[in-house]
Amino acid sequence: MRCDAVARSGTRPVAVATWEFGGPAATAAGEVLGAGGVSLDAVEAGINVTELDPEVGSVGYGGLPNTDGIVEVDAAVMDGPTHDAGSVAGLRGIRRPVSVARTVMEQSRHVMLVGPEALRFALSHGFEEEDLLTEASRKRWQERRNAEQVGHDTIGLAALDAAGNLAVGCSTSGLAFKEPGRVGDSPLIGSGLYVDNDVGAAAATGVGEEIMKFCASFLVVERMRAGDTPDRACRYVIDRILAKTSADADVPIAVIALGRDGSCGAASTKEVFPFAVWTQDGLEMREARRPGE
Amino acid sequence: MRCDAVARSGTRPVAVATWEFGGPAATAAGEVLGAGGVSLDAVEAGINVTELDPEVGSVGYGGLPNTDGIVEVDAAVMDGPTHDAGSVAGLRGIRRPVSVARTVMEQSRHVMLVGPEALRFALSHGFEEEDLLTEASRKRWQERRNAEQVGHDTIGLAALDAAGNLAVGCSTSGLAFKEPGRVGDSPLIGSGLYVDNDVGAAAATGVGEEIMKFCASFLVVERMRAGDTPDRACRYVIDRILAKTSADADVPIAVIALGRDGSCGAASTKEVFPFAVWTQDGLEMREARRPGE
Repeated sequence: MRCDAVARSGTRPVAVATWEFGGPAATAAGEVLGAGGVSLDAVEAGINVTELDPEVGSVGYGGLPNTDGIVEVDAAVMDGPTHDAGSVAGLRGIRRPVSVARTVMEQSRHVMLVGPEALRFALSHGFEEEDLLTEASRKRWQERRNAEQVGHDTIGLAALDAAGNLAVGCSTSGLAFKEPGRVGDSPLIGSGLYVDNDVGAAAATGVGEEIMKFCASFLVVERMRAGDTPDRACRYVIDRILAKTSADADVPIAVIALGRDGSCGAASTKEVFPFAVWTQDGLEMREARRPGE
Repeated sequence: MRCDAVARSGTRPVAVATWEFGGPAATAAGEVLGAGGVSLDAVEAGINVTELDPEVGSVGYGGLPNTDGIVEVDAAVMDGPTHDAGSVAGLRGIRRPVSVARTVMEQSRHVMLVGPEALRFALSHGFEEEDLLTEASRKRWQERRNAEQVGHDTIGLAALDAAGNLAVGCSTSGLAFKEPGRVGDSPLIGSGLYVDNDVGAAAATGVGEEIMKFCASFLVVERMRAGDTPDRACRYVIDRILAKTSADADVPIAVIALGRDGSCGAASTKEVFPFAVWTQDGLEMREARRPGE
């Protein structure tokens, strides 16, 4: 079962995930990796944990809805060994959107499906239509008064398996109280997530409107390709975003990165950004800081 | 009116567009530029020409439909001076989708809207719902027998105005006879199009499923940032795509690029790719070749 474990580098498996809620996700991914599973399965299993947790108000079931009061979710996966990807956006009524994204990758001839047709695809592939709105999120929607910036906390998860293969995925219900049909960076290959199996993987979280104008995840991987460590690559991207956005703009954005050698890192436009790292030594919660702080 | 014409570089205006049908588009863009107009207006005016031409079977009105027989369009614009962007995907019933994308950029708080909600946004901003299916494309849909690779020819157009500002846009009805809800690279910032006003602009055309796995337009601009000419940057990206895709895969992809100094270039995975270049000396049709040929 582990016969090809040292085929590439003999690296010990690693999972990296965004935010505090990335802890349980990285742990679930780690269980797959620790049992000799492949990185793509680990990514899906980890993200499913966050999607199904009603307490996470920005991902899957329990995510905050759009202005119409409807939860619309975006998700994507990208697989290192095949360099293939799958993505759904503006999807309603499905609690495990990252699994639909994987199904698009594996069982359609396309990469990205959106809107009601993404739901139609999901239903035709055995997914069940369920309500994503919890009583708590319905109440928060009814009581919303200010266009406060809440709920743009995407679960992004990158995994390296014992065979040295990478995968990455992300899932979100998007900006809370967004306009219906709004899509952020999460389902966009290169913006919300990217992997090159020869280099590394990255994922982003924060204001999707800004992340997509910088192809943040792709740029992290390009910097790693050029020799940057994951940490330095993340700081480079955050620095570029900060340089191009006006100084008084409040643009919370963070990126995580995982190199094919198992090294990892993160950076954020905000003072502190928590992220989770699972290795066979256990789960470690870390904090990334704004570059220069 | 031309008071800031030499503010950046005094460069003479240029418009570059994909394919043979890019000739009329580049000419229309050139009329705006020649009259001292800004690059964003030139991009929109040029792309509108292709969108409204029923003879172009892969863009806007007259585009080939999805498997349901419905035309679904994707489009995006990105503006150099503001580094802002707008995008629509899976949009039905609108003949000038790039103008909706521009309206998303200018009149919503988001960058990307998809599906029926993108149509709802368009209708609420004065666009009219019209049938995009011509009798000719209806007939081609009814008669389709093989899953032939037809109609993935996106109009991509980049413009440099007399003030030295860049803009880029693209518009497509996507892969002919695609699955409903399928989205390709065209509406994805960094895949179908990208601009950095300090560097240059790029757009892509071809099989969107592959283009988006390489963030082709963003990568062209990154290579230009690192010092490559537009031509060399385009060849670099095509080389990377060819290196990562299997040798026997037939993956038609082309990219065009426009530097902020007015230089331009293109490259293609296929033997010959025609593109259009407008300058004040007139319209010139050029051909890009596969790197090494």
